[in-house]
Amino acid sequence: MTAIDINCDMGESFGNWTMGRDSEVMPYITSANIAGGYHAGDPHVMRETVELAAEHDVGIGVHPGLPDKMGFGRRTMDATPEEVRDYVVYQLGALTAFANRHGASVQHVKPHGAMYSMLSESEAHCRAVMEGMLEVDPDLVYLATDMNIYEVAREYDELDAVFEGYVDLDYNPDRTLIVEKSVGPKDPELVADRVVSIATRGEIEAVDGTTINVPASSICIHGDGSNAVELLETIHDRLDAEGIELASLDELV
Amino acid sequence: MTAIDINCDMGESFGNWTMGRDSEVMPYITSANIAGGYHAGDPHVMRETVELAAEHDVGIGVHPGLPDKMGFGRRTMDATPEEVRDYVVYQLGALTAFANRHGASVQHVKPHGAMYSMLSESEAHCRAVMEGMLEVDPDLVYLATDMNIYEVAREYDELDAVFEGYVDLDYNPDRTLIVEKSVGPKDPELVADRVVSIATRGEIEAVDGTTINVPASSICIHGDGSNAVELLETIHDRLDAEGIELASLDELV
Amino acid sequence: MTAIDINCDMGESFGNWTMGRDSEVMPYITSANIAGGYHAGDPHVMRETVELAAEHDVGIGVHPGLPDKMGFGRRTMDATPEEVRDYVVYQLGALTAFANRHGASVQHVKPHGAMYSMLSESEAHCRAVMEGMLEVDPDLVYLATDMNIYEVAREYDELDAVFEGYVDLDYNPDRTLIVEKSVGPKDPELVADRVVSIATRGEIEAVDGTTINVPASSICIHGDGSNAVELLETIHDRLDAEGIELASLDELV
Amino acid sequence: MTAIDINCDMGESFGNWTMGRDSEVMPYITSANIAGGYHAGDPHVMRETVELAAEHDVGIGVHPGLPDKMGFGRRTMDATPEEVRDYVVYQLGALTAFANRHGASVQHVKPHGAMYSMLSESEAHCRAVMEGMLEVDPDLVYLATDMNIYEVAREYDELDAVFEGYVDLDYNPDRTLIVEKSVGPKDPELVADRVVSIATRGEIEAVDGTTINVPASSICIHGDGSNAVELLETIHDRLDAEGIELASLDELV
Repeated sequence: MTAIDINCDMGESFGNWTMGRDSEVMPYITSANIAGGYHAGDPHVMRETVELAAEHDVGIGVHPGLPDKMGFGRRTMDATPEEVRDYVVYQLGALTAFANRHGASVQHVKPHGAMYSMLSESEAHCRAVMEGMLEVDPDLVYLATDMNIYEVAREYDELDAVFEGYVDLDYNPDRTLIVEKSVGPKDPELVADRVVSIATRGEIEAVDGTTINVPASSICIHGDGSNAVELLETIHDRLDAEGIELASLDELV
Repeated sequence: MTAIDINCDMGESFGNWTMGRDSEVMPYITSANIAGGYHAGDPHVMRETVELAAEHDVGIGVHPGLPDKMGFGRRTMDATPEEVRDYVVYQLGALTAFANRHGASVQHVKPHGAMYSMLSESEAHCRAVMEGMLEVDPDLVYLATDMNIYEVAREYDELDAVFEGYVDLDYNPDRTLIVEKSVGPKDPELVADRVVSIATRGEIEAVDGTTINVPASSICIHGDGSNAVELLETIHDRLDAEGIELASLDELV
Repeated sequence: MTAIDINCDMGESFGNWTMGRDSEVMPYITSANIAGGYHAGDPHVMRETVELAAEHDVGIGVHPGLPDKMGFGRRTMDATPEEVRDYVVYQLGALTAFANRHGASVQHVKPHGAMYSMLSESEAHCRAVMEGMLEVDPDLVYLATDMNIYEVAREYDELDAVFEGYVDLDYNPDRTLIVEKSVGPKDPELVADRVVSIATRGEIEAVDGTTINVPASSICIHGDGSNAVELLETIHDRLDAEGIELASLDELV
Repeated sequence: MTAIDINCDMGESFGNWTMGRDSEVMPYITSANIAGGYHAGDPHVMRETVELAAEHDVGIGVHPGLPDKMGFGRRTMDATPEEVRDYVVYQLGALTAFANRHGASVQHVKPHGAMYSMLSESEAHCRAVMEGMLEVDPDLVYLATDMNIYEVAREYDELDAVFEGYVDLDYNPDRTLIVEKSVGPKDPELVADRVVSIATRGEIEAVDGTTINVPASSICIHGDGSNAVELLETIHDRLDAEGIELASLDELV
């Protein structure tokens, strides 16, 4: 049976500052990427977000960032592969302790923002992070945002990796994404079409009308998009109608 | 056979700033209290300190602090029991991930500085931290710096607790310590006498010459004390001569 | 002619996290308390907030906080008078540099949250901050949130101090405020009555119906209150009708 | 009369972590580059360092860094020109407040570590910082570590700029420096020769024996170099013997 995961970034509030609509979005997703306290999040937010994920039986993942709250982890920095690996291990461990409270473990790792860009551009950084993950817990899944990273991950026999596709942003024909500063409202039917297209055929229509290959087992939704909840409702209805199952990452690998 | 643990605070360097003499002291201790990144330490320092502990077969413990690097975690703050619990869980988890790399787990928790004072003064904070520990890993040992905390810990059947004694500082007759801003040189033979006295009789001579009860299974040494290594060497020789065994906390509970 | 200042906390966004409605509120106030980067704010936010204040000819003040972003500066900490003084001097200087860009200087200092509580409870902290201010710039005004602090300030001949009153919260008969976690909607006419009562008679009706003394030359409005802009509009209309002038702090001292 | 400035980085301790030998070095220099709290330093350290500089009549400069204490400001980050400008303005203002306490103002700006590298590589960043300085105080001197930056500075008529030379590191023939992880002991006579050569002829011998142009009016000494104080004593003796005067930056421009 065809199955797909829906993931979303979560837990990006910090102290007195709130961000996102975690409690509205969590019921519709199967994997949560939870900020680890470096670019966003704090211990209290992490505990609450893990609780929310556990309530909805959502796979718990860590969304580690660079140590740059002022820049929200969106500015690449000239850190060594070993430094970035240690930032991932630290945040992964911290989140695991909160997951333990629910008898759960961390399911996956999806680096945030500039950290993901650094991994995409440097194989050494990519390998350091993946080897760091394997040392902590060989059952972890790497959730890959781009093909450079996905291909490195697949070279490790012992590492499970899943590629993710985007449906609330447009793709260029070369499979890069057309990033929006804040994700505006999207047509729910178009977005649902894209999910089905990725889930059943591994492809999507790019902005120029050509069909491109997106071999994704997971769909990323921007939880802070203008009509994120509406999109998720429509996706659920469509998957139901098409007989496509929702499954978290650890059920897919 | 009589046995005792020797613990020491470790991993308190941060970025480019170094502190302590971890590599000189580690060979002589059985349990290391490793800073968790809040009052001191960072992911790189934590990795290195855990490696050093693993090399010397030293029990790995977390030394969690308040989120106050500028004050080195030495200023009490009006944080709630739940906030302090979450700070402990976060740092405990982070250290665990580094321990996992060595097939080890975290053995114990010993709160640092003002966090320990807050636990000593508020049973609610104390209970929140201990219940937080139990949710993460019921095998953890709480290493108690004062009797208020130790007595709360002993009310939890499922929580192992060990009381620690000090030998490079003087005790007042009421079992409070005479704190020194930086620990000056101490007479090695006097210090070794104190270790033997605590290990064999559970008592020590206070500053006024009276004998007080110190029911400790662990001895804390200040690694940055003026002659810490000399003290540790003398302690080792004396324990050997007296037939007292060294054992890490998890061997003692 | 009777005159009064209206002050509001501003610039409490941080990096990617926004807070408050600064651009909506700024046109209605005469003095802005701008976060200095410790409990909230960052250099970019400070620059933008100072620009906004300068555009509307609003007096620029610093709203210094404790170094505790995770707790939004709302947790008292056991910092010395000298430490708190230096936190104020640092943030005051930083804001001054942004004010210089507009040919302006910093008009006043109003400590935030737990820092203000610490000053209220400790005369030593209070004096350290005030003497620190005088060393930096003797023309600064101290904007006092409670009477303990105001009375200390008035003991310094060379320090200008202004007491502030609240009109969108209720007073207890002992002149303490009934704090609301987030300030709910208030009756604009009642709030305007209170402003006039403070401005013309230096008194206000407490929650039990008794009249209490509030010798304030400035009114603080919570910019994030549910209907803050509506309140400010009504206050402006009323002041106009009553012939009460609006004036920034440095015009009042 | 020939004159030269000697500058040194100062105030790089943080909280409980100490760095450098500020009190030993300060008597020998004429301009201090004081950390502004981002890569190093804190309000207490800044106050003490400014006091020390004032005691020895040393020109007070700010040594602003990137907001990256964990990396000691040594990792370039993808921050915009406006962001870097605002980091400089913030730290410059903060230091100015401490200087005000001594009736002094800030004399100069010398960006630290990776911030200086970013300015050297990007004219846009360089211009943003210099224009930011001019808006705060047109009397500030820019102390330039490399020729790219110096040449941009000289395009601003209203900005004073001074180029600095190094004498405790070796130059490559292309005027780049051979950086040492920590500066080892140097021959005092060789170092003094270099100072005289720069002060009188604006040139120095590179590592390959060729003579290169170093049009510096200031000499930078690494205060944490193995024999920094010895070097400074020898330099002072030699300048005295050669009739070369010591002068702070604002006396030279």
